[in-house]
Formats: sequence, C-alpha cells, structure tokens
Amino acid sequence: MTEPYDFELVMRVRDYEVDVQGIVNNANYLHYMEHTRHEFCRTAGFSFAEMHKRGIDPVLRKVEVEYIHPLGLGEEMVSKLKLRREGARFEFYQDIFKFPGEEPVIRGKATVVCLENGKLTKGDVLAAAFAKYLN
Amino acid sequence: MTEPYDFELVMRVRDYEVDVQGIVNNANYLHYMEHTRHEFCRTAGFSFAEMHKRGIDPVLRKVEVEYIHPLGLGEEMVSKLKLRREGARFEFYQDIFKFPGEEPVIRGKATVVCLENGKLTKGDVLAAAFAKYLN
Amino acid sequence: MTEPYDFELVMRVRDYEVDVQGIVNNANYLHYMEHTRHEFCRTAGFSFAEMHKRGIDPVLRKVEVEYIHPLGLGEEMVSKLKLRREGARFEFYQDIFKFPGEEPVIRGKATVVCLENGKLTKGDVLAAAFAKYLN
Amino acid sequence: MTEPYDFELVMRVRDYEVDVQGIVNNANYLHYMEHTRHEFCRTAGFSFAEMHKRGIDPVLRKVEVEYIHPLGLGEEMVSKLKLRREGARFEFYQDIFKFPGEEPVIRGKATVVCLENGKLTKGDVLAAAFAKYLN
Repeated sequence: MTEPYDFELVMRVRDYEVDVQGIVNNANYLHYMEHTRHEFCRTAGFSFAEMHKRGIDPVLRKVEVEYIHPLGLGEEMVSKLKLRREGARFEFYQDIFKFPGEEPVIRGKATVVCLENGKLTKGDVLAAAFAKYLN
Repeated sequence: MTEPYDFELVMRVRDYEVDVQGIVNNANYLHYMEHTRHEFCRTAGFSFAEMHKRGIDPVLRKVEVEYIHPLGLGEEMVSKLKLRREGARFEFYQDIFKFPGEEPVIRGKATVVCLENGKLTKGDVLAAAFAKYLN
Repeated sequence: MTEPYDFELVMRVRDYEVDVQGIVNNANYLHYMEHTRHEFCRTAGFSFAEMHKRGIDPVLRKVEVEYIHPLGLGEEMVSKLKLRREGARFEFYQDIFKFPGEEPVIRGKATVVCLENGKLTKGDVLAAAFAKYLN
Repeated sequence: MTEPYDFELVMRVRDYEVDVQGIVNNANYLHYMEHTRHEFCRTAGFSFAEMHKRGIDPVLRKVEVEYIHPLGLGEEMVSKLKLRREGARFEFYQDIFKFPGEEPVIRGKATVVCLENGKLTKGDVLAAAFAKYLN
C-alpha cells in the first residue's frame, strides 16, 4: 500500500508462539491481527470490552493471509492497519513487518461485520466511531 | 495413585502445541487438563455449557503440575482424572501418561470452586452431579 | 465442492477455544485446519514428524478462511480436506461443517510449498507421497 | 514476598486470551509466566534463542499457580519475578498484579532445570549468567 496506515503496533514474538520449525506458527498471525484491531479500537475510543457490554459485537467474516517471511524466537514486529468501509463490511488491511526495518512478514486482510444484540447491522455505530479514519 | 481413576481420555498431540524445543509447550498441559475435566463433566451428564447457561461457573483456584517426561510431535497420551471433594473445593488429581503404555508425562492437581451467579457456593449442586464419584 | 473430499476428521471444540463472544476464536480454525492436514499426512503414511526429521518442511504460503456459522461450547465438527497440486504449490481446500449434519462452519484454502533443508523445492517428494490423491 | 523482585514486565491482556466466562483462561497465565522469564533472561543478557542455539535448554520441572483475582478484557497487569537457586534447580517466584495498583492476580512458582545437549546439568552456566540475581 502506498497510502499511510491508520495505526501501528510494535510487538515482540512470545517464544511459545514459535513452533518446532523454529518459526511463529501460522495461527498466531491471526492473534496478532486481532490484537492490533482491538488496540486500534481502543485508540479510537471504543474498546472491544465496551462494545461487548453495549451488545455490539464485531464479527470476522473473512480473513486472508499471505505469509512472506517468518518471524522467529525473540524477534520484533510492527503490525500496521488501514481501515476501509464497504457498505456493512469493514475491511482491515493488515500488514506486519520486521521491526526495526521494513521487511514484510505477512500481508493480510480481515473483513468484519457488526452484530447488535445478535443481529447483523449496517455498521453505522462502528462507522461513527471510526469516522476520522473513513473519509 | 493406587486407586482407580474416575475418567480417562485418549488424545493425540496437535503439532502446533509443540514448541521450538520439540516438546509440547508447558501451558498446553493445562489445556489438556481442562479439556479432560470438561469431558468428564459431560460424561457425568453436566456439561460446562449447560452449567454456564444455568449461572454455575466452576472456577480454578489452584493448579500444580509436575513435568516428568515430555510429549513430542504426533504422540498420543491418555489423560486420567480422579475427583475428591474437600468442603467447598473439588480436587481433580490429573495424571497424563504416554499412550499406549504407562510412561508418566505429568502429574497434576487442579483445585476448583463453584460460583453461582458470581458468588462462591459450598458446591452442593456440583457435588450432587458428581455423587457417584464422591463417596 | 461437488467432488468428494480426500479426508475427514471429526473433532469436538475444546472449551478454552471459545472466547468471550461465546464462539470459537477465529485463529483456532487455523489450528483445526493445520491439525487436519497433519492427520491427513499421517494417514497418507508421511507424518509431519518424519518429514521434519528428513529435513522436509511443508510451509504455509497463503491461507483464506470464510467464516460462515460459528462453533460454540462443546460442539462437534467434521473437518474435510481435498488436495490439489499446482506446480510447486499444494492447495488444500478445507471446509468444516457442524457434526452431525452438514451446516457449513468455514470454507478455507491453505496453500503450502515444500522446503528441503531450508530451500524451496518443486514438491516432488510430497507429490509422490500423495500420488493417490493427485491424479 | 517482602523482598524486592528481580524483574517486572507490564503487559495488557489480549482479548483472545479471555474465555467464555469473561476471564483470562487459566493456561494463559503460564504463557505470561514463561514470557516474563524469557524477557528476564534477555535483560540478563542471555536470550532463550541464544541459549537454544548453544545447546542449552532450560526445562520446566514444576509449576504451581494460585489464582486469586481474574483478569478480564483489556486489563493491564504487571508480572513480577524473583529468582532463587536450589542446587541444580532454579526457582522463579512469579506473581502477577493488576496494573496500575497492586491487586494480586496470581501467585506462582516455576521450577526450572537446565539441559545441555539433552543432558541434565548442575546449572552452572545459567547460574553464571544470573550471578547478580543469585547472591
């Protein structure tokens, strides 16, 4: 992406996330991506915990991850996120890079819809919360 | 233990549970132990899901694990459980062995109390459900 | 898919895999998919552990998951797999359904390449092992 | 403990670590404890990755955790550690508190021995690395 990202989070690999091949197990990147989205929401003033209490549950509809270069024991990453809205769907473009430096680790995309008390919504509450990122 | 166990569950290691040392990561044994307790509850006719719906939440107070011999990629285990009650506390003696065979993997103990709608109980509802194991 | 699958594995949700929304956390489906691939390899006579010992490491290049209907506490699933080869890439079409029944849970695809002593291969060793599934 | 701790690490709960009861699943505290030990080792100048490369593998022999007050969605903790040596065994006293504040979350103890090329050692290499903490 040439556009700027909306949010960045630096994390270090936790060694238990590394499997017998010596690299971070593939499922953990979904954990990194989810944690990045939730920290982004918190920064935007709308934490996952508060949403859940208010009956608003963002739900993942689709995730795609391209694994480019693996992370290993003790390495650091920067996890970056760009948000777009497509109707009722929120698309999080989520790329992770080695840190420091810019070597790509994964390129990902997570598509989220928003339930309110268990029913699919148009996402307007979430969109209002993220207004400054969605122009 | 020389007494018979109350419940046994055979499981295979999932390879993502194995860390860079080539052995199952220590935290996963708590997962095995919890899953064994929940399968035991289901067998006793009182699943964790039903308990949760009825406002009954067993909560772990203490866990002790002695790691004896590690499990590796693709290995099978048998996870065994013996239940005892000490007042409001339910003590699950939980040992895991390689399978087949009887090589000990871990010896563990999990102490559980029972909340009802968030308040500590004497555990009588749980004790009634487990009556046949507790005399 | 109208074609038959190459492999099926029945599993029950482990309750620790369920998050605060009451549904299996999204990353765990990648664990289910990986475990299914590894059990498929074992059935094909070529376990992940043996491959790793021989210096052969299948590596995930891409994963796509469409989340259709979530699994909850104590539910059972059947995880199905169909293998195809596209040059050096092995494509695992991996769908999970509630069990019993056929309600779709996820539709997924995992693309794997094969390293030998750390170097990318054409995948011929793996293809030979999977020959009966690949015509 | 009235003695000062040797190391402290502040972390935030990742929301996927929270289970259907709304609290961090018990096994994740072992992850927090392990990550704290590894970050302590890194600070002491002797990372887990380097140890592993040199054939030195610290191995967990025993873990005990007393669960006092659970952590929930989005909460922060400070994970504290005090190291003692008992012959070949390294005892990590590991307590976690809510952050900020000092409300206790867990009290734990992890007992570690040290393998060198797969054989049990007296732990002198590790003891030398941790000399400043072990007087």
